Amino acid sequence: MPPEKLAFVGGTGPEGLGLAVRFAAAGHSIIIGSRSLERAQEAAAKVRAKAPAADVEGRVNQEAVEAGEIVVVTIPFAGHRDTLEALAPSIGAKIVIDVVSPLVFEGGQIRALPVPEGSAAQQAQALLPGAAVVAAFHHLDAGSLMNVENPLDADVIVCGDHPQAKLRTMALAEQIASVRALDGGPLANSRYLEEFTAVLLTLNKNYNAHTALRIVGIGGGGKPGSR
Amino acid sequence: MPPEKLAFVGGTGPEGLGLAVRFAAAGHSIIIGSRSLERAQEAAAKVRAKAPAADVEGRVNQEAVEAGEIVVVTIPFAGHRDTLEALAPSIGAKIVIDVVSPLVFEGGQIRALPVPEGSAAQQAQALLPGAAVVAAFHHLDAGSLMNVENPLDADVIVCGDHPQAKLRTMALAEQIASVRALDGGPLANSRYLEEFTAVLLTLNKNYNAHTALRIVGIGGGGKPGSR
Repeated sequence: MPPEKLAFVGGTGPEGLGLAVRFAAAGHSIIIGSRSLERAQEAAAKVRAKAPAADVEGRVNQEAVEAGEIVVVTIPFAGHRDTLEALAPSIGAKIVIDVVSPLVFEGGQIRALPVPEGSAAQQAQALLPGAAVVAAFHHLDAGSLMNVENPLDADVIVCGDHPQAKLRTMALAEQIASVRALDGGPLANSRYLEEFTAVLLTLNKNYNAHTALRIVGIGGGGKPGSR
Repeated sequence: MPPEKLAFVGGTGPEGLGLAVRFAAAGHSIIIGSRSLERAQEAAAKVRAKAPAADVEGRVNQEAVEAGEIVVVTIPFAGHRDTLEALAPSIGAKIVIDVVSPLVFEGGQIRALPVPEGSAAQQAQALLPGAAVVAAFHHLDAGSLMNVENPLDADVIVCGDHPQAKLRTMALAEQIASVRALDGGPLANSRYLEEFTAVLLTLNKNYNAHTALRIVGIGGGGKPGSR
């Protein structure tokens, strides 16, 4: 696929950083966004350290999304609504890949928070009516993403109502070595993906593990319909 | 493990029948429950056809749960509340494995129904306060279960608040060849399992497949903590 220009909103956290490293290593241009220019530039330096040949820069969130072609949202859910509301004019009609899982840690347990719109990704679509919102990448472990020299034994299930945006996201996902992208249906299914993250985090805790998901029973181990 | 006496509430549907076949083949005693004695006995005959050496009988639901040690609930969600309410005195303090996913098919899409108690399994626990309710087996394809000569390439994630009931359910799950059981945490996590069934059914439709789930990244391919 041709190189994409990817802007990360909240690219300084572990999930954003991990995805940025993988996509930088695959030859895409990366703009790490943050509320703080200094932290964005620090994070960009971390990505460059893992992918020295890559085109990576740090900017404040608004400049990042203005410069990017595809916006990747990797902020904590607590800031999801306010951040996207503020960035809506800059995001306009772009593709938005929402990676956010609305989870809270309480009394040693992980719990999904109710979202009035249904899911974080549906909230993004409601706040960004002109954009093509896709939900993906919730189940990739941040630490495993950072080990860019290792292939990632994982499937990425992608949900969305905009077919072209979904196909572009699926192609992007498969730029991560060993990842298979699967079409998980409409954006309304994103809640089930987001909340399933709570199960994977519970398994990580119960088994001291870094879990990911594989779907068995599709094709003959091939990648049907995913490009 | 010693043989269990398993009573299926709604054992005439494809999921109940499939699980009954697997557990019968593993040497457990099976009582297929139904509202109709005739349909229960027909289903029992289908199970015996797949597992000729097994101890299998058909009874009406109430007699089935009275005779069983472990109750497996495989009814459609539409009848979940009324059926369990009626059977509560007969179920008493038994182990109840709830396999129900509260889903509805609408306009070509699959959608999870809201459940006031949180999930079908949490509803079961609320209706059966003396019982030890466990949620499991949602993600096993009914058709694949019926092919009892084939191992099942799948993980079974088990949620529950009663440790002994959970361990017994996990041991039971691993009686199905190639299945690995995983401790998915408290019963509150059951909603994420139930609703994820909607994603697997969407994938089945999108890829004309019979999907199941494998969790990657736990142990060295071993079965840590699962027995």
